[in-house]
Amino acid sequence: MKTGLHTLLKHKIYLLLLWVLQIYFSSPAQEHPNLILTKTGVKNIRKQLGSIPMFDNTLVKVKAEVDKEIQSGIHVPIPKDMAGGYTHDRHKKNWIILQKAGLLYQLLEDEKYAMYTHNVLKEYAKMYPSLPLHPKKRSYARGKIFWQCLNDANWLVYVSQAYDCIYDYLDKDQRNYLEKNLFVPYANFLSKENPQFFNRIHNHSTWGNVAVGMIGLVMNNQELINRALYGMKIENFDHELKDNDGGFILKKDEKAGFFANLDSPFSPDGYYTEGPYYQRYAMYPFMIFAQALQNKKPELKIFEYKDGVLINSVNTLLNLTNINGDFFPINDAQKGMSYYSKELVSAVNIAYYYGNNSPSLLDIAQKQNSVRLDQTGLSVSQGIKENKRIPFSKNSIEFTDGSNGNEGGIGILRSKDKQHELVMKYSAHGLSHGHYDKLSFSYYHKGNEVMQDYGLARFVNIEQKNGGGYLKENKTWAKQTIAHNTIIQDENSHFNGEYEKGSLHHSEKYIFDTSHPKLQIVSAKESNAYQNTRLHRTMLLLEDLGFQKPLLIDIMQFVSNGAHQFDLPYYYHGQIIDTNFDFETFDTLSPLGLKSGYQHLWLENKTVIDDTKTAQITWLHNDAFYTLSTFTKAKNEILFTRIGANDPRHNLRRDPSFIIRKPQSKNDTFITVIETHGTYNPVTEIAKNSSSSIKEIKEVKTDNENYLGWKIITKDDNEHTFVLCVTNNQKETQHSIYLNNSPIQWIGPYYYSKN
Amino acid sequence: MKTGLHTLLKHKIYLLLLWVLQIYFSSPAQEHPNLILTKTGVKNIRKQLGSIPMFDNTLVKVKAEVDKEIQSGIHVPIPKDMAGGYTHDRHKKNWIILQKAGLLYQLLEDEKYAMYTHNVLKEYAKMYPSLPLHPKKRSYARGKIFWQCLNDANWLVYVSQAYDCIYDYLDKDQRNYLEKNLFVPYANFLSKENPQFFNRIHNHSTWGNVAVGMIGLVMNNQELINRALYGMKIENFDHELKDNDGGFILKKDEKAGFFANLDSPFSPDGYYTEGPYYQRYAMYPFMIFAQALQNKKPELKIFEYKDGVLINSVNTLLNLTNINGDFFPINDAQKGMSYYSKELVSAVNIAYYYGNNSPSLLDIAQKQNSVRLDQTGLSVSQGIKENKRIPFSKNSIEFTDGSNGNEGGIGILRSKDKQHELVMKYSAHGLSHGHYDKLSFSYYHKGNEVMQDYGLARFVNIEQKNGGGYLKENKTWAKQTIAHNTIIQDENSHFNGEYEKGSLHHSEKYIFDTSHPKLQIVSAKESNAYQNTRLHRTMLLLEDLGFQKPLLIDIMQFVSNGAHQFDLPYYYHGQIIDTNFDFETFDTLSPLGLKSGYQHLWLENKTVIDDTKTAQITWLHNDAFYTLSTFTKAKNEILFTRIGANDPRHNLRRDPSFIIRKPQSKNDTFITVIETHGTYNPVTEIAKNSSSSIKEIKEVKTDNENYLGWKIITKDDNEHTFVLCVTNNQKETQHSIYLNNSPIQWIGPYYYSKN
Repeated sequence: MKTGLHTLLKHKIYLLLLWVLQIYFSSPAQEHPNLILTKTGVKNIRKQLGSIPMFDNTLVKVKAEVDKEIQSGIHVPIPKDMAGGYTHDRHKKNWIILQKAGLLYQLLEDEKYAMYTHNVLKEYAKMYPSLPLHPKKRSYARGKIFWQCLNDANWLVYVSQAYDCIYDYLDKDQRNYLEKNLFVPYANFLSKENPQFFNRIHNHSTWGNVAVGMIGLVMNNQELINRALYGMKIENFDHELKDNDGGFILKKDEKAGFFANLDSPFSPDGYYTEGPYYQRYAMYPFMIFAQALQNKKPELKIFEYKDGVLINSVNTLLNLTNINGDFFPINDAQKGMSYYSKELVSAVNIAYYYGNNSPSLLDIAQKQNSVRLDQTGLSVSQGIKENKRIPFSKNSIEFTDGSNGNEGGIGILRSKDKQHELVMKYSAHGLSHGHYDKLSFSYYHKGNEVMQDYGLARFVNIEQKNGGGYLKENKTWAKQTIAHNTIIQDENSHFNGEYEKGSLHHSEKYIFDTSHPKLQIVSAKESNAYQNTRLHRTMLLLEDLGFQKPLLIDIMQFVSNGAHQFDLPYYYHGQIIDTNFDFETFDTLSPLGLKSGYQHLWLENKTVIDDTKTAQITWLHNDAFYTLSTFTKAKNEILFTRIGANDPRHNLRRDPSFIIRKPQSKNDTFITVIETHGTYNPVTEIAKNSSSSIKEIKEVKTDNENYLGWKIITKDDNEHTFVLCVTNNQKETQHSIYLNNSPIQWIGPYYYSKN
Repeated sequence: MKTGLHTLLKHKIYLLLLWVLQIYFSSPAQEHPNLILTKTGVKNIRKQLGSIPMFDNTLVKVKAEVDKEIQSGIHVPIPKDMAGGYTHDRHKKNWIILQKAGLLYQLLEDEKYAMYTHNVLKEYAKMYPSLPLHPKKRSYARGKIFWQCLNDANWLVYVSQAYDCIYDYLDKDQRNYLEKNLFVPYANFLSKENPQFFNRIHNHSTWGNVAVGMIGLVMNNQELINRALYGMKIENFDHELKDNDGGFILKKDEKAGFFANLDSPFSPDGYYTEGPYYQRYAMYPFMIFAQALQNKKPELKIFEYKDGVLINSVNTLLNLTNINGDFFPINDAQKGMSYYSKELVSAVNIAYYYGNNSPSLLDIAQKQNSVRLDQTGLSVSQGIKENKRIPFSKNSIEFTDGSNGNEGGIGILRSKDKQHELVMKYSAHGLSHGHYDKLSFSYYHKGNEVMQDYGLARFVNIEQKNGGGYLKENKTWAKQTIAHNTIIQDENSHFNGEYEKGSLHHSEKYIFDTSHPKLQIVSAKESNAYQNTRLHRTMLLLEDLGFQKPLLIDIMQFVSNGAHQFDLPYYYHGQIIDTNFDFETFDTLSPLGLKSGYQHLWLENKTVIDDTKTAQITWLHNDAFYTLSTFTKAKNEILFTRIGANDPRHNLRRDPSFIIRKPQSKNDTFITVIETHGTYNPVTEIAKNSSSSIKEIKEVKTDNENYLGWKIITKDDNEHTFVLCVTNNQKETQHSIYLNNSPIQWIGPYYYSKN
């Protein structure tokens, strides 16, 4: 007995300890929801419903949307279509609705949402085991539900959240059925069966990693979680393989997984090397997985990783928008995408909650007028309700590129009233979505493009246009240098348009200085785009009372070891109002060139400058006048072009440009000023200030080839004189040179005076 | 003594009578202001200042504007520049400020405004007697202050009001000085010295008449008043002379003066034959002079003249705007002009006050957010304050053209939700501002042009573009038929582009019927545009649940006595998304033709249809999808063009078109459907409903050449069948024919069924 009692007691103590241990160690992992929503969070939200307007409003909208979908029944068709087609759009809708239905179940405690979610998931689980690869063979990584793994990953990132929300509603058998038939094979398909998709440094892989990681966290599957965080070991991979966008799939000895994707494409400033359009796209999986990790693995301190790069990157992304909130279209980017996108709603909410509750984020959230239906959205709604919002003011700012911040960057100059915005690009290539446009820029006035970057050649999700995918003109036009506002040598794109070469190099920042009260300056050099040619562009935003609006001064210097043709295009919008030179008009239009994008440009007009002159072109766009003034020499040419040649499917916009051409030049400098002036009102029909204030631009000879000098002379005879030291960018260095035989002295890399 | 007393008494009685007579007869003419403002009106306004928000707000703005000008000093430069140049703009500003300063003097009783007005007028009076004709010799009627009499007349219409306001502030000598040196010679210059300007049926003359009439009323100068109202007798005038726009200056035996200009260009519906852009321009002098006449010569009952045509015309003008309030650009018209213009503020205020205080006019006034600073503006402000406003709802409506309403007209079809608006033109030529575009149309969706009319080729008041005047491309392009969405035979414009011929004819309305619950129809015929060719266009707006948005059905029939080439262009905006036919792309672009505007079109693509087919083109514009479906036969062609050839000064916009061509045809019908469907959202990147719902358009043979039949078959196999009787438009007529061997019967000119 004693032994028996002892044994029994031991056994009971054992069970008790086991139970304690289970509670202590397992409970956080087992009591659902615990991925994005948490038990405590949900309780907190439920208590406050009805008293937090933005949250309540979002909830009403989401409920209406989901209720309507539930009424329409369950639709899980056999996958068949490309993006824009029915099955694609339907499965996409499913992931959106499932995630929301899960939330509604938790917040409203109405089982119909859990039942619906379960029923849809069962349909997927029924279909998945026998599902072949998607019939469309267009992707380097074909999915099963969609034509590419990327979309399959999207699905799982969202659906994991839905599963977490109804996890406790299901019994063990129901969960086993779903996990065995759907979630585990799904996660393995995205990773083990598609290493070329999963194991990269690329936004695709981020989605893949996070998909696997999220479902891993829900199922508490440590193997999947590790795979997501640290990637897979792969042997015998062909490292020369490229993806659909022409990017390398897997470089040798490269790290992979979520952490690697945080390490490498993000600079310490939070700039994502592919550019803001894809940063926006990747932001959702980055932030949502970070939130999940913070909930389930707080010991990773994910939001502190790399000095808080995730929170920084949200701030960076918001700064990479124009006055309307549209992202600057750097690299492959569809215009019109903005901080109103759902990814940015998530990013702003999560950054607010896990960052320092920065009150300026509430300004963006208020504009977005929508929040996440979780703790983060709750805290944003409360912040807004409590009037904590302060303006999110976007100023001139620079972002470094490269994982260590030493691979060039992006410089943004904004005028004092924020109506003029210049973006200059001197970054690294930007992976497979990069364009060949070193030292390019775009320029905005009141959110309108004064000088545009073309963006991508693609109609995302419009099925008729190549299934919504990239068009071949993306490669033949949009990525080429001539499609951008930057210099082209001998009608060849930078790095000869070769990804392998372009990926090796980045431009070098030279100056970014906004300390002068009237003059902001950004300057960078590029020495690898063309062999034996050095390029150096300096852009200055001058705000002087002598001009109605800011002046953009553009100094593009090239130094080569042989004579070449150099072209500098400016892609404007609008109607030419006046020029101070005559130009030739053609009876028939021909393409400007044969390759590197030149084959897509019709040459509309041409002029050959006969002697040194300030050539001027005035145009009207959106009821404002602009003048480009450029210092030209004999034999320089100005070409008026329009996109559209060799475009048999009308895939390109018919946009115009001015191209300034210096034929057979070795060393020279394009000196150009873009001036905003005047307005036109079609209702009063009053034209104000329709002419340029600039009389002349002059080159100013210095006694030293380390310096570039130029002058802008206005019609009221003010002279603005500039000197730039091109070989020393130190702020403290003292310079003294002779300018037109007069000595001048100054400190720092540039000199400016007005008289 | 007795006699003496008697004489004295008699004299006193005489004086008393004289005084009574003077008061009785002269007082209304002598107590100023009495032209636009009245003594009583001013008193009434002064009493209410501070309690009528819209009036008060306008007053604050006007005061700030005038105060700023007064501070800047007096500027009366010697005339020198074209429109857009300094002296032009300055004198224009003077007339604006003087008129406002006069009002302020009356309303605020602050003498500084009277003094300023007087001082400026003295400068003009000093300059005027020795002023030669304006140095620019561009006008058929050169002015003195401006390059054309028209602007001189504008000046006097406004300045007369200012003079009236300070009339009693001046003493007799001061008035005499101004009248003798400035106003009388000014009025004579505009009339006697420029009969070719003054004595026409034309908006120019209306301005001239009113200028002379207004100053005549202020000065109580009956001779000038009569001249203004009834014109001058002119002998020995060359009736073949034309003005700068190519219009006849003076037809033989034509009446002239204000009444003649009310009689002739206005139809009884209040449609002004030049079109709404010029109607808007003429509206100010018409309405302001009517107000002055009502104040000073109420016996003329001017607002009841011709069944109240002036009040009607304001309603008409407001109906001739799209959903944004922009005027439909019929004939010469600069786009963007709208009911927000100051002329329409005046027109709406005056029509409200002298009409029946129509509460829907308050809706427009509220949008305008500005009122006249007189009794009319006061009553509008009060109406708004008292919440009397009801919506001004624009419906489908037809306006006849011609002084008796029997010269064709303009038909406007609006969808039920007002988002789609069709304007079809079957009017008379429209005087010198008319275009050669019989049976043309333009079409709007949410205020965006789906199918545009080009408008004019001019940049009004932009000096660099031909001094702001008409460009030669207005004649070579904008007026030509090919610049419009209508049919062209053998690449010749209607009436061979000859004003003399075009002015003789008008199209004939055939049907305007909006009584059907799903189908609205407008139809008209044109038999004179080409000799021996009859044209008949019918446009139908179909709203059926089978289509997401309304369908515009366009039936263009031609019957000729010989074989010709017929072109039907559609000027769209946006990006081509898809076509269901292949087309040719060219290595070089050439102009489509040699003359009649064809020389301005680049031919971008071409296809020759090989067999009967419904050709379809889908495009994307402002985030909406559109599809044009057209029934084509073998050898029909579809051409894609773009404006811009032979345009050496970039005076034309680079807008695209589809042209459907039927080569060598005698009798045939273009059957085309324009479908709005779907949306694109660049933030969510979701494309909804991006494909047409139409599977096929079929010609349906009838057993009788008096009927046209066609069918629209949708992708879900609904068939919409239409029959149009082309020879009898009577509503009551019963028709019975065989359609595909089945008998059908109906009443009225068209048949429609869906199954």
